[in-house]
Amino acid sequence: MNTPAGLLSPVWADTEAAQLTSEQALLTTLVEVEAAWAEVLAEAGEAPAAGAAALRAIATDPAAAGLDPAEIAAAGVGGGNPVIPLLAQLRSVLNAQETSDEALHRGATSQDVLDTALVLTVHRACAAALRDARATADALAELAETHRSTVCVARSLTQHALPTSFGLRVAGWLDGIRRAAVRLSGAVAELPIQWGGAAGTQAALTDMVGTARAAELTRQLGVQLGLPTPSRPWHTQRQPLLEVASALAGLLAAMGKAADDVLTLQRQEIAEVRESASGQSGGSSAMPQKQNPVLSVLIRSAALAGPAQLAGLHYAAASAVDERPDGPWHAEWPQLLELLRLTCGAAARGAELFAGLITIPENMARNLRLTGGAVLSERLVAALSDSFPGGKSALLEVISTHAAGTSLRAEITRAYAAAGSVAPELDRLLDPADYLGRADDFIDAVLADFAAERTTWS
Amino acid sequence: MNTPAGLLSPVWADTEAAQLTSEQALLTTLVEVEAAWAEVLAEAGEAPAAGAAALRAIATDPAAAGLDPAEIAAAGVGGGNPVIPLLAQLRSVLNAQETSDEALHRGATSQDVLDTALVLTVHRACAAALRDARATADALAELAETHRSTVCVARSLTQHALPTSFGLRVAGWLDGIRRAAVRLSGAVAELPIQWGGAAGTQAALTDMVGTARAAELTRQLGVQLGLPTPSRPWHTQRQPLLEVASALAGLLAAMGKAADDVLTLQRQEIAEVRESASGQSGGSSAMPQKQNPVLSVLIRSAALAGPAQLAGLHYAAASAVDERPDGPWHAEWPQLLELLRLTCGAAARGAELFAGLITIPENMARNLRLTGGAVLSERLVAALSDSFPGGKSALLEVISTHAAGTSLRAEITRAYAAAGSVAPELDRLLDPADYLGRADDFIDAVLADFAAERTTWS
Amino acid sequence: MNTPAGLLSPVWADTEAAQLTSEQALLTTLVEVEAAWAEVLAEAGEAPAAGAAALRAIATDPAAAGLDPAEIAAAGVGGGNPVIPLLAQLRSVLNAQETSDEALHRGATSQDVLDTALVLTVHRACAAALRDARATADALAELAETHRSTVCVARSLTQHALPTSFGLRVAGWLDGIRRAAVRLSGAVAELPIQWGGAAGTQAALTDMVGTARAAELTRQLGVQLGLPTPSRPWHTQRQPLLEVASALAGLLAAMGKAADDVLTLQRQEIAEVRESASGQSGGSSAMPQKQNPVLSVLIRSAALAGPAQLAGLHYAAASAVDERPDGPWHAEWPQLLELLRLTCGAAARGAELFAGLITIPENMARNLRLTGGAVLSERLVAALSDSFPGGKSALLEVISTHAAGTSLRAEITRAYAAAGSVAPELDRLLDPADYLGRADDFIDAVLADFAAERTTWS
Amino acid sequence: MNTPAGLLSPVWADTEAAQLTSEQALLTTLVEVEAAWAEVLAEAGEAPAAGAAALRAIATDPAAAGLDPAEIAAAGVGGGNPVIPLLAQLRSVLNAQETSDEALHRGATSQDVLDTALVLTVHRACAAALRDARATADALAELAETHRSTVCVARSLTQHALPTSFGLRVAGWLDGIRRAAVRLSGAVAELPIQWGGAAGTQAALTDMVGTARAAELTRQLGVQLGLPTPSRPWHTQRQPLLEVASALAGLLAAMGKAADDVLTLQRQEIAEVRESASGQSGGSSAMPQKQNPVLSVLIRSAALAGPAQLAGLHYAAASAVDERPDGPWHAEWPQLLELLRLTCGAAARGAELFAGLITIPENMARNLRLTGGAVLSERLVAALSDSFPGGKSALLEVISTHAAGTSLRAEITRAYAAAGSVAPELDRLLDPADYLGRADDFIDAVLADFAAERTTWS
Repeated sequence: MNTPAGLLSPVWADTEAAQLTSEQALLTTLVEVEAAWAEVLAEAGEAPAAGAAALRAIATDPAAAGLDPAEIAAAGVGGGNPVIPLLAQLRSVLNAQETSDEALHRGATSQDVLDTALVLTVHRACAAALRDARATADALAELAETHRSTVCVARSLTQHALPTSFGLRVAGWLDGIRRAAVRLSGAVAELPIQWGGAAGTQAALTDMVGTARAAELTRQLGVQLGLPTPSRPWHTQRQPLLEVASALAGLLAAMGKAADDVLTLQRQEIAEVRESASGQSGGSSAMPQKQNPVLSVLIRSAALAGPAQLAGLHYAAASAVDERPDGPWHAEWPQLLELLRLTCGAAARGAELFAGLITIPENMARNLRLTGGAVLSERLVAALSDSFPGGKSALLEVISTHAAGTSLRAEITRAYAAAGSVAPELDRLLDPADYLGRADDFIDAVLADFAAERTTWS
Repeated sequence: MNTPAGLLSPVWADTEAAQLTSEQALLTTLVEVEAAWAEVLAEAGEAPAAGAAALRAIATDPAAAGLDPAEIAAAGVGGGNPVIPLLAQLRSVLNAQETSDEALHRGATSQDVLDTALVLTVHRACAAALRDARATADALAELAETHRSTVCVARSLTQHALPTSFGLRVAGWLDGIRRAAVRLSGAVAELPIQWGGAAGTQAALTDMVGTARAAELTRQLGVQLGLPTPSRPWHTQRQPLLEVASALAGLLAAMGKAADDVLTLQRQEIAEVRESASGQSGGSSAMPQKQNPVLSVLIRSAALAGPAQLAGLHYAAASAVDERPDGPWHAEWPQLLELLRLTCGAAARGAELFAGLITIPENMARNLRLTGGAVLSERLVAALSDSFPGGKSALLEVISTHAAGTSLRAEITRAYAAAGSVAPELDRLLDPADYLGRADDFIDAVLADFAAERTTWS
Repeated sequence: MNTPAGLLSPVWADTEAAQLTSEQALLTTLVEVEAAWAEVLAEAGEAPAAGAAALRAIATDPAAAGLDPAEIAAAGVGGGNPVIPLLAQLRSVLNAQETSDEALHRGATSQDVLDTALVLTVHRACAAALRDARATADALAELAETHRSTVCVARSLTQHALPTSFGLRVAGWLDGIRRAAVRLSGAVAELPIQWGGAAGTQAALTDMVGTARAAELTRQLGVQLGLPTPSRPWHTQRQPLLEVASALAGLLAAMGKAADDVLTLQRQEIAEVRESASGQSGGSSAMPQKQNPVLSVLIRSAALAGPAQLAGLHYAAASAVDERPDGPWHAEWPQLLELLRLTCGAAARGAELFAGLITIPENMARNLRLTGGAVLSERLVAALSDSFPGGKSALLEVISTHAAGTSLRAEITRAYAAAGSVAPELDRLLDPADYLGRADDFIDAVLADFAAERTTWS
Repeated sequence: MNTPAGLLSPVWADTEAAQLTSEQALLTTLVEVEAAWAEVLAEAGEAPAAGAAALRAIATDPAAAGLDPAEIAAAGVGGGNPVIPLLAQLRSVLNAQETSDEALHRGATSQDVLDTALVLTVHRACAAALRDARATADALAELAETHRSTVCVARSLTQHALPTSFGLRVAGWLDGIRRAAVRLSGAVAELPIQWGGAAGTQAALTDMVGTARAAELTRQLGVQLGLPTPSRPWHTQRQPLLEVASALAGLLAAMGKAADDVLTLQRQEIAEVRESASGQSGGSSAMPQKQNPVLSVLIRSAALAGPAQLAGLHYAAASAVDERPDGPWHAEWPQLLELLRLTCGAAARGAELFAGLITIPENMARNLRLTGGAVLSERLVAALSDSFPGGKSALLEVISTHAAGTSLRAEITRAYAAAGSVAPELDRLLDPADYLGRADDFIDAVLADFAAERTTWS
C-alpha cells in the first residue's frame, strides 16, 4: 500500500509515481542513502562492512526492521526533519543485531541524506514521467502522420479562423511535450547528490579522511547511487532543484495544453475527438448517457495545481538564507513531491489518453463547413480584393455580414454576376485543403526532431 | 494511523489536523454525508430507516466495513472522483446485509457529497486551527502585558531605528493573529453544505419530492450535519471556498510573521528570545551545542508553502466553467487540503511556541545600547536642531558619523561645551523608555479587541 | 496621459482604474496625504496654515509644481522609496515660495505616507470596481429574469448533463459577483489609514503633542482623508491589505468564471450567446468574418494573472519581519497595484460585456436536442427502471449505447412495445422544461439577495 | 522618459531594463518587427522597397511619426491587442507619405508581430541582465578569492553551526548566480522568432510565395532581427517562453539568496558586512544614524514578486487552447514584462551591491567566538568522545549545558583534569581555521567553472 494513496488526487492515484513518492518509499530512500554511504565507507576501509550490509538489508525491507513512516514522522517534529529519529531507530536496530553503527551517517548531516534521498526520488519519478511522455509522444507522432491530410478548423480566440490539418494540431501537442521532455531529461541528468556536511564544508568528513579522500568518497557515493556527483555542495544554492522543477512544470504545461484542446474538441457540439471509454473510464453514476473525458479532466486538474508549487519552490530558493535555511528548505519537500506527483500523473494519463484517442474526421469536416466558407476569408480578401466589384471594402462588407448557414460562395458569385463578371478560381480558393500553408513542413519538422531525440529521454 | 502521516511535512505531522485530513478521515466524512442524507430521507419518510442506520454504522468504522482508501482511490481514477467507487462499495455492503440501498445517494450527485464532505472537513480542521490560534493569542496576550515596559530596539530594513517595547512587538503579533482568526471564524461559520444535484438544479430530488420538500430536505441535511444550508447550490460559484481559503492563508501569514520575528530574535548575536527546549525539540544530531528554533522554522516553512495553494484555488475558481468544471473542481481538493494542513499545523506549532517562549530582557537592553544612543537620533534631531552649535546640519553630521561603540551622548556634550553651552535635557532625551510614544495605548487597544472577541472564535 | 497606459494590458487600458493607479495619480496621492496631514496640524494649531495651503495647491496639480514621476522614481532608488525624494522636492517648492515647511511630514515616516496613499488609491479604485460590478450585476439580474424560462443544456466535465435554464446559469454568474462584491465592499470599508511613525509607536508625534493629542490628530487625519482610523498602526501586520487583496481576487475569479462560460458559449459550434460587436470591438485585421469575444478574452486574461499577485502579497505579509520589513513591504506595491488594475479592468469589461450580451435561444434549444433526449437520462432511469423491459440494466444499456442523432424516445418506445407494453408519460419525462428542479427558486434567491444588498456596495 | 518609470518599483526604476521594457520601447519594437519583415519582403522582391524604408524610418523615431503608446493602448482594447491599431496608424502614415503599404504586415498576423517583438525585448533585456550578472559575479569572484581564509560562522536554522570561510559563503552566491546565468544565456539563445500567420500554418504567406520561399523569407526575418528562426511556429506551444521565464526566475532566486544573506549579515548585532553607502543610497530621512542595506532590500523585494509571475506564465501556457488562446496569450504579456523587469532590476542592483560590499572580518571573528568554542562541538565530539572522562554522553552534557560567554575550552580542560588526565590537542581542535574541511576545494571549483563560462554569457 502507498500512503498517501491519492484518494482526492485521482490524477496520480494508482500510478508508479504514487508508489515512488509514497511515505514508505521516501523512508526506504532515506535508508538507501545511509546504506550507500556506509557501503562507500566500508569499501574504502573506513568502516566495518557489517554495518553497511545490515543497513542494506534494512533498506530492502524497512517495515520488517520495524521502521514505520508514521512513527518517524511524529518523532521528526522535534528536530524538524525525519532523519534524526530515523538515525535513532537505525542505531537501535543495528545495536539489537550487535552490529557496529560506526559507519552510520558518519561525517554526514541530515540535509545530506534528505536532499540526496529526494534527488533519488526525483530521478526515479522522472524516469517514469519520461517513459510516459515518450509513450504519449509516440501515440501523437502516429496520429500526426495519420491525420496529415485531415482538414479541420483552426480556432483563434475561440472563433473559426482558418483551415488547418488535424495532423498539425497533434504535431503541436507533440512538439510541446517533446521539447519539455528533452529539457526535463537534461535537467534530471544533471541533478546530483548533495553532500556537504553540517555547513557545506565537509569538515567532519575531511577531519576523518583528509580532503582528497573526502572528495573521492563523495564521488563514490554518487557512483553507488547511480547519480552525478557535484564538485561542491548546493545546500543553499538550489538551482539544480529549480531546474528540474521548472522542467517538470514545463512538461505539465505541455500536457495541459493538449488536454485542454481535447476537452474542447470533445464537447458534443464540436465532437472532433473522443477519449476512448476503455473499462470504467469516464462513466457517470447518475447520467448513463455521459461519456466524460476523464483523462483530460485529470490532466487539466494537475496543470492547474502544478504552477503554484513551482512558485513556492522559487520563493524557498530565494529565501535560503545562511548555511541551512530557517524554513525555506523544509518548504521545498512537500511542494517538490506534489509537483512530481502531478507531472508524473499527468504524463501517465496522457499516455493512456493519446493511445486511445478516437478521431472523428466527419465532424471536423462538418465544423469546417459551419461558416459557409467564411473560414477562407483571409484568402478571399487577398485574392479577390482587386477584382471584386466595389473593391476590398465591398468584399469585406460581404464577408463580415455573411450569416452562418448561408453560402459565402453564392454571395460572392452573385456580386460578381451583378457586375457582369465572373468570380475567379472559386473552387480552388474555397477549398480548405488547398489552404494549409506549410502544415506538412511543420509536421515533418516536429516528427524529425522527435525521431532524433526520443531515444535520449531517460 | 493517519495517511499521509507527514513524513516530509513536520509542520503538521502528528497534529489533530493530520488526523482530520487523513485519507481515512476523508473517506469517513464521505460516508458521513451519505449517512446524514439517508437519515434525512428516512426521517422524512422518503426511504426506509434501515439503510440510514446501516450507513451510519459504516460511517463509525469504515475499515470494519471493508472500505479502504487505497482501493477506492485506485478505483476513483476511472470516473475522476472517489465517490463513484465508494457508492458501489456501499451498495455492496448494504446488499450483503440485505439492507435496502434505496436511500443511498438518492437525488444527489458526486459533487454534492464530495463538496459537502470537504466542507465538513474544513469546519473540523478550522475548529482545531482556531482553538490553537486562541491558545497562541492567549500566550501572546500574557506576554504583551508582562513586557509592556520591557524596552527593546525597533528595527526597520534590518537596522536599529527607535526604541519600542517588547510588549508592543508581541501585541503586533497578537493583533495579526487575532484579526485573521476573527476573519477565519466568520468565513467558516458561513461555509455551507453544497447540494445541487447533477447540474445545480436539484432536478432529481425535486422530481422525487417536489420543490418545497426538496428545499426542506436540503435544510434538514444542513441541520443533520451541523452546517449552514445555502439558499442555492454553489457548485460552480466557489466564493464560499475562496473566502475560507483566503482566511486560512491570512492566519498562516500572521503566524509566519510572528515566527519570522522569533527566528531573527533568536539569532545568537541578537538573542532577545529563545524557543523553549521542551523534550527533544530543537536538538541537532551532529552539533550538540545547537538549540534550533524548530517550531518557528516549521511555521515559516508552512508560510512559504501556503500562498501558492491559495493562488491555485483562485485559478480553479476563475476557470470553473459550465455546470461542473473540466478539471478546476478536481484541482481544488489537494490544494485546499494542503492549505488546511499547513495552517492548522502552523497554528498548533504557534500555540506551543508562544506558550513556552523565553524572553531575555537583558539582551534587549544590551542591543538597545549597541549604537551608543543613536537609536534616539530621531528625537535628538527634533529636540536639539535649534540649539545645537552649527545647527541641524552639524547635528546630523555628528550623528551620521558617530561610530558604533562610542557614546553619542559624549560627542553631543562635547560639541555644546566647545561652543560654551550645555546640552539640554540629555538624560531624558536619551532615555529609551521615555521615547515609546503611544506603545501602551496600542497594547491596550489590541488587548481590548482580543478580550472582546476571543470567545467568539469557533 | 496615464503612465503606464496599458499598451500590453488591454484589459485595463483606457479605464478609470488606469487613471487612478497611474504614476501621476500615485504621485498626487502621496502629496494629498502630506497635504492632509499638514492641514490637520494647522487646524490643530500645531503648524502654520500657509504650508498646508501650499501643499494642497501642489496636490491639485503636481506637474505644475514641477513634480515629475520619472524624476522621483529615479531618485527614489537610493532610499528605496519615492517619499524621500518627494519630500526633498516639496521642501524645495515650499522654500521657493518662502513658505514654512515646518508642517511637512512632521512626526511621520515614509511608510505612513506610502501606505496611506496606497490605501487611498485602493479606496478609489475599488469604488470604480464596485460601480462596474454593480453595473455588471444589474445587467445579469435582468438577463436572469428574462431567461428564467429559456431552457438550455447544463454541461458537466464538458458533456451534456441535464437541462437547466439560461436564467439560472446567469443567476449563478450574478451570485458569484454579488457575493464577491459584498465582501470587497466590506473589506474596503474597513481598510484604514496607516500612521505609526518610524517604528509604529508614534514616538515623534507623541513627543510633539502628547499621547492624547497624537491619537486625536491621527483620527483627524482619517477624517480629512475620508478614511477609517485604526486604533493602532498595522505597519507590519498586513491583514487589512490581505483582506482587500483576497476580496479583489475573489471578484476577479467571479468575473473570470462568467467570462469563461461566455467564451465557451460563443464558440460557433455552440453559439448560445454572442458578445455585442459595438464599435470596433472584436474585429480581426486579417479575418474579416471573425467576431471575437474580446471582452471575455480580456477578462479571462486578467483572471489568469491576478491570483499570482495575491500569492505574492501573502508571501510578503508572512515575511514582514521587524518593525519595517527588509523587502516584503516593497514587494507589495507593484503586486497590489497590478491586482487592482486587473480586477478593476475585468469589472469594467464585465459591465460592457453583460450590458450587451446577445442571447440566441434557438441555439440553446438546438443544442438541447443534440443528444436526442439523452440529456434527460437521469430522469428516465429514475422513472422507468422499474417498468422498463429487462429492468434498470437494460435501460442503462439502451441509454449508454444510444447514438447522438438518433431518438432515444423512439428506442425506448420500441423496447416497451417489443415487450407488449407502453412507455409511461414519455411526453412529460422527455420535456426538458419540466425537469428544471428548483431553478426558479434559486434564481429568486439570488435576485432577492442582490436586491437587498446592491445599494450597500460602495 | 520611460513609462512606466517605476515610481513604486525602485528595484528597476532608472535601469536599462526600465528603458527596454517601457511602453515607448515596446511600441518601437513592434514597428521594428514590421519594418524588418517589410525589408525581407523588399529584399526578396516581393514588395517595393520604399515601404520598408519608410517603416524603418518610423521605427527609429515612432514619436516623430505621431505614434503614441497611450493612444494605441486605448485603441487596442477593441481588438484585444495593440497591433491592430498600430497597423492602422502605420498605414495612415505611409499613405500620408504616398508610400505603398503593400509590404506592411503582409501574410502576418498580430500574434506574429507581438510575439516576435516580445522575443526581441527579452533578448535585449536579458543581455542587460546577463551583463549585470557577470559584473556581480566578477565582484563575487574577487571577494571569494580575497576572503578564502577569512574564517566566519556558518549558521543553520539561524544558529551557529560550524566555522566556514567568508570566501566559501561568497563562492556559494557566485555559484548560484553563475549557474542561473549560464542557463538563462542558453535559454535566450534558443528563443526564436514566432511567425506562423493567423493559425500557425503560414497559409497566407504560402499563398503569396509558395512553401519553399515562405520558409526562406521566415529565415531571413530571423537574420534581419538577429534572432534564431524555428522550424515551425510556437504560437500555442509556449515552451520557449517558459524556458526563458524559468531561467529568469532562477537568476532572480540566486540574487535573492545572496541579498538575503547580506540583509542578515548587515544586522547591527551581526555586522559582518555592510553595503557601501555611495551617494545617497541607504539614507533615512527621519533617522540620520541609519545606514539601510537598500540594494539588498530592493533585490529581496524583487525575489518576492517574481515567482508569482512565473506561476502565472505556466498557468497561461497550460491553458493555451486552440490555435490562439482565449486569454492565456494575453495574460503572458504583463507577467513576462514584470518578470523581466524584476530580474534585470535585481541584477543591476546586485552588480552595484557586490562591487561595493564592505566586509568586516573583525566582526566575523568576534561572532565566531561568541559561543566560546561551541561552534567546534561537532569536531570535539568526534575527537574526544573516546577519551573524555565519562565518555561521549558526559561530553555532550558539557557541551549542551555550556553557557554562551563562558569558555568551553576551560570546561573541557577542567573535566580532564578532574579525572587526572589532559585534554589532547585542544589548540588544534578549537582552531576554527583548522576546521574548514574542503572549503578551498569548493571555492576553486566554483571559480574554475566561472572562469570557463563567463565569456559565454550573452
